[in-house]
Amino acid sequence: MNSTDYSVDRRDIRFVHQELLKLEQLTELPHFQGFTAQDFDMVLQEGSTFVEEVFAPLNKPGDEQGTHLVDGRVVTPTGFKEAWRQAADAGWIGIISEPEYGGQGLPLSVAVGVLEAMYGSNPSLYVTVMLTSGAAGLISHFGDEAQKATFCEKMITGRWGGSMCLSEPDTGSALGDVTTRAVKAADGGHYLLKGTKAWISGGDHDFTENIIHLVLARAQGSPPGPKGISLFIVPKYRLDEDGNPTLPNDVTTLRLEHKLGIKASPTCLLEFGARDDCHGYVLDGENLGMMQMFKLMNEARLQVALQGLGAASGAYRNALAYARERVQGIPIEKGKDQAAARTPIVHHPDVRNMLMTMKALTEGMRGLIHATAFYWDLAHHGPAETRQYYSDLVDILTPVAKNAGADQGFEVTRLGVQVLGGVGFTEEFPLAQNLRDTKIASIYEGTSGMQALDLVTRKLRLRGGELFASLLREIGDVDPRQALLPSLGQAIDQWQDATEKLKLTVTSLNNLNTELGPREGAFHATDVAVYLADVMCAYYLLKMALIAGEKLRAFTGGDGLETGRLRELAEESEEARFYYNKIKTAEHYVFQILPRAKAVAAKVQSRNFAALEAIL
Amino acid sequence: MNSTDYSVDRRDIRFVHQELLKLEQLTELPHFQGFTAQDFDMVLQEGSTFVEEVFAPLNKPGDEQGTHLVDGRVVTPTGFKEAWRQAADAGWIGIISEPEYGGQGLPLSVAVGVLEAMYGSNPSLYVTVMLTSGAAGLISHFGDEAQKATFCEKMITGRWGGSMCLSEPDTGSALGDVTTRAVKAADGGHYLLKGTKAWISGGDHDFTENIIHLVLARAQGSPPGPKGISLFIVPKYRLDEDGNPTLPNDVTTLRLEHKLGIKASPTCLLEFGARDDCHGYVLDGENLGMMQMFKLMNEARLQVALQGLGAASGAYRNALAYARERVQGIPIEKGKDQAAARTPIVHHPDVRNMLMTMKALTEGMRGLIHATAFYWDLAHHGPAETRQYYSDLVDILTPVAKNAGADQGFEVTRLGVQVLGGVGFTEEFPLAQNLRDTKIASIYEGTSGMQALDLVTRKLRLRGGELFASLLREIGDVDPRQALLPSLGQAIDQWQDATEKLKLTVTSLNNLNTELGPREGAFHATDVAVYLADVMCAYYLLKMALIAGEKLRAFTGGDGLETGRLRELAEESEEARFYYNKIKTAEHYVFQILPRAKAVAAKVQSRNFAALEAIL
Repeated sequence: MNSTDYSVDRRDIRFVHQELLKLEQLTELPHFQGFTAQDFDMVLQEGSTFVEEVFAPLNKPGDEQGTHLVDGRVVTPTGFKEAWRQAADAGWIGIISEPEYGGQGLPLSVAVGVLEAMYGSNPSLYVTVMLTSGAAGLISHFGDEAQKATFCEKMITGRWGGSMCLSEPDTGSALGDVTTRAVKAADGGHYLLKGTKAWISGGDHDFTENIIHLVLARAQGSPPGPKGISLFIVPKYRLDEDGNPTLPNDVTTLRLEHKLGIKASPTCLLEFGARDDCHGYVLDGENLGMMQMFKLMNEARLQVALQGLGAASGAYRNALAYARERVQGIPIEKGKDQAAARTPIVHHPDVRNMLMTMKALTEGMRGLIHATAFYWDLAHHGPAETRQYYSDLVDILTPVAKNAGADQGFEVTRLGVQVLGGVGFTEEFPLAQNLRDTKIASIYEGTSGMQALDLVTRKLRLRGGELFASLLREIGDVDPRQALLPSLGQAIDQWQDATEKLKLTVTSLNNLNTELGPREGAFHATDVAVYLADVMCAYYLLKMALIAGEKLRAFTGGDGLETGRLRELAEESEEARFYYNKIKTAEHYVFQILPRAKAVAAKVQSRNFAALEAIL
Repeated sequence: MNSTDYSVDRRDIRFVHQELLKLEQLTELPHFQGFTAQDFDMVLQEGSTFVEEVFAPLNKPGDEQGTHLVDGRVVTPTGFKEAWRQAADAGWIGIISEPEYGGQGLPLSVAVGVLEAMYGSNPSLYVTVMLTSGAAGLISHFGDEAQKATFCEKMITGRWGGSMCLSEPDTGSALGDVTTRAVKAADGGHYLLKGTKAWISGGDHDFTENIIHLVLARAQGSPPGPKGISLFIVPKYRLDEDGNPTLPNDVTTLRLEHKLGIKASPTCLLEFGARDDCHGYVLDGENLGMMQMFKLMNEARLQVALQGLGAASGAYRNALAYARERVQGIPIEKGKDQAAARTPIVHHPDVRNMLMTMKALTEGMRGLIHATAFYWDLAHHGPAETRQYYSDLVDILTPVAKNAGADQGFEVTRLGVQVLGGVGFTEEFPLAQNLRDTKIASIYEGTSGMQALDLVTRKLRLRGGELFASLLREIGDVDPRQALLPSLGQAIDQWQDATEKLKLTVTSLNNLNTELGPREGAFHATDVAVYLADVMCAYYLLKMALIAGEKLRAFTGGDGLETGRLRELAEESEEARFYYNKIKTAEHYVFQILPRAKAVAAKVQSRNFAALEAIL
């Protein structure tokens, strides 16, 4: 690990997978019975190496070169096409896709160990991978047999790309208002599409011989609003009888966006049917588009959370490496003693506070997001009797994880720039690009505000609050008496208190909605999503800290340990140090980050809505 | 005001100057007796127009073109040199400089109304203006008569530029460790300098016929550490007998930094004395450099606060304009009624929350920073008996204002990107550049961490806490009984409570220092600086709100006003709306931003220092 290259936090990911979530239990499920715990571990190892060797080195040159529209064709940075091919050949595009189409069929919870690193190390490239895999997943889920046979394998093996065409220039996130039209052709075999789609990541590129667009449009005669929306399969090149690409299908790239970050990712403005000759094929049936799209978006939201997580992990490791090697200033405890040895900046209290905040946010996020992926696996492939339970957890945690990844991920990159100081502001170190690239995470796949609204006005209220009740039950298993150190026990007490107050805050929020109205009820949505994320991140960190305590006990043959001895152990052994730092990370989250929950509670309690009363 | 151009918030600046601070009282001081209130107002008007017409239009092209080193010479973007000339001719470089050298000699508190806009609208260009004016100020303060005569007028009128050469590649912010050497030449008239200086803003450019560097270096035989540092005047071109530039003075631009933002500003790596022939002249005397430099840095810190403020002001106005014109989505109170009219996004509660947070942070900062400038004027030119008092306020508020401007300014630009959503992430709108440019503010002129350390380990402890006591006395004059609306009265109560708790928090912090040690005592420095900034920003907003209430009373001939009638008034009249929104802004700050102070108090109370105990 150094201050300029992306390196995967193998040890921490393995800890979360093997010691916290114990993912080997998934091999006992019929769906995953072909896998062993060793397989899962090998995927992490190989994926990490792949990321560091193939994806990461292209990130900075990709940013510098950018992606350009030349004579109507998208030209991507040097090496991107080859990296795509390598990712495809090694099975990374199809890591969670069905084996029958060439996918690896791995559990999502295992895959996220690799995906966070792919997203974090090269978000521009990964976003096209993610959308291809997602679009293929939609076709395999909703498509008819012919569609599956035609598209899925070719996409999952990376011969063809995929894109999701939802937004339009005028509608942005209000997808019920899309104006792209689809008219059934006279021969009935296809529709003719006409409309313009905006913000299409991977909407055009030179990686593949074809691109399969999934386009949200309104079929002729459909009802207005979200209920009249359908999804259409629209290939960039039409297919012959054998499913091979032939003539262009009247899809035009009008423009690439000039962006703050992910500059190597082609963000396209696409025109469908400029010559009234754009063929599309309905997915499953008319007017099912919103439901289909929400399935994709739920998975994509979790993926975007991984972007923030992967970026944060990289930022933390780069900043830590820099802070260890950069010598500057006299240690504060030496006062003004000019003869004192200068110190690496990692020793300065403020730098340490920033680094531990970066570490705690990152590892807390990792707990939350990887656990959500684990619940996703159980919701889809676990025992029938607990599927609804885990599905509920996924539903309530998806918007929370998306915002945590996006916004806390950005915050970690911001802190990373700050730890480096002047050089952090230059493009010589990866922190600046990391900051720029990560900003998009709070915007695409639904802004943070929309996620929070989904949480507060839907998920928290659904079935009389049952999802929230399930979540509270799920996190009811940490016991301060199990803590190795008194300070950790106090952290658990403190966290339990914050969790109790979260319940009260959610009740207050619902009361605001009932008593004052929906605008007042939604006003604190983003804040409450942060509160819930903090409670969850701290929960996973506390669980990790309790496990770490058990491991540390084993180091001394089960004897009790007092703090001094623990620190000695941690100085001596890298493994002991990892566990010792885990405990300290949980404490830091609870005592130095979670207190912001008090602010959220106070804001909701204030019942002041000056912002709604102001005339803006 | 629109969503793409920088516009100055004339109304709010005039409100702060004329209604809050009543700057016309400065005309009664002997030092400013040549000015009238009308002069002050005219400066604001003309300065605002200048900024909008000259500085602002170059900001985006400057960012796109950047600044380049071509054959050893710095080439700045098209139009920058002409804009510099216009700024010089109109007197803006010398706005606060002494009239005897061609300056306008205006009070700093008046000038900041223009300077925040110059910095906010084009930070790349302004930073060179600021450093030129600052370097000239140092020479006029510490230089001998010949030096003043030679340099001051030419710099203040913009014929020559100025730079401050402090950091070195290895020392960064640890200025006591600089290694640049100065050896007195045999003839005694000058020194020969040798060393490399890094991060030199405006260290080279093509605006002027000469550049006067002020270089921190160690004279031969000086003691080690900060006490052995001197400041040297080093012209880029040597001067003949008449003070005209002649031969180059052995100063080489080795490199320009490739930065995240302020890309049009040349950030130079400068080598002094590559050919052992770099002439410099000591300022005042040897070993006075640190003290001299701190004088400059104190003023520069306030200037950097203006960068954040100006950027925030622009971001708020652009985002508000966009949110008013961008129609998207159904109002939440209409539920799923597809027939409902779509609404401008300014109506959505989350967007409104963001906009009001941007407004409150910006206007709170403006109160704090402009007031600090006002105290500066009183400390320097006010009645002798109160100079120490105001000097104390400036000393304690400077690091607080710097961090508030830098960090809250950046936060406002982040929110600006978020309000715009997808287009905010593109470089088509100014928000993305604004975010990039503003990031530097928390780094240069001392990082936020260093400012906080200055506050906590020096300013709060100085003379047994007397500075802090003075500050608390200064803000002891808001009375909830004067509030026009009950909600404002509650806000004042709430603020008073937070201020009481701030005192306790500062005491706790000092106890940590005494009982546990300097690392523990400094650990929460950045947080406590935020707390103090929040109390101060809220204070000025509450003062503004009380004034606004008085003005609103006048609208109805002095009668009492209930909320409904107030809103009606505000709907009808732009002036009434301004005042009504001022009250709501203060409430928003107290009830939706200030609560984060609770988190700071809890962090300090926790006495948990896991971050210092971890082994990083």
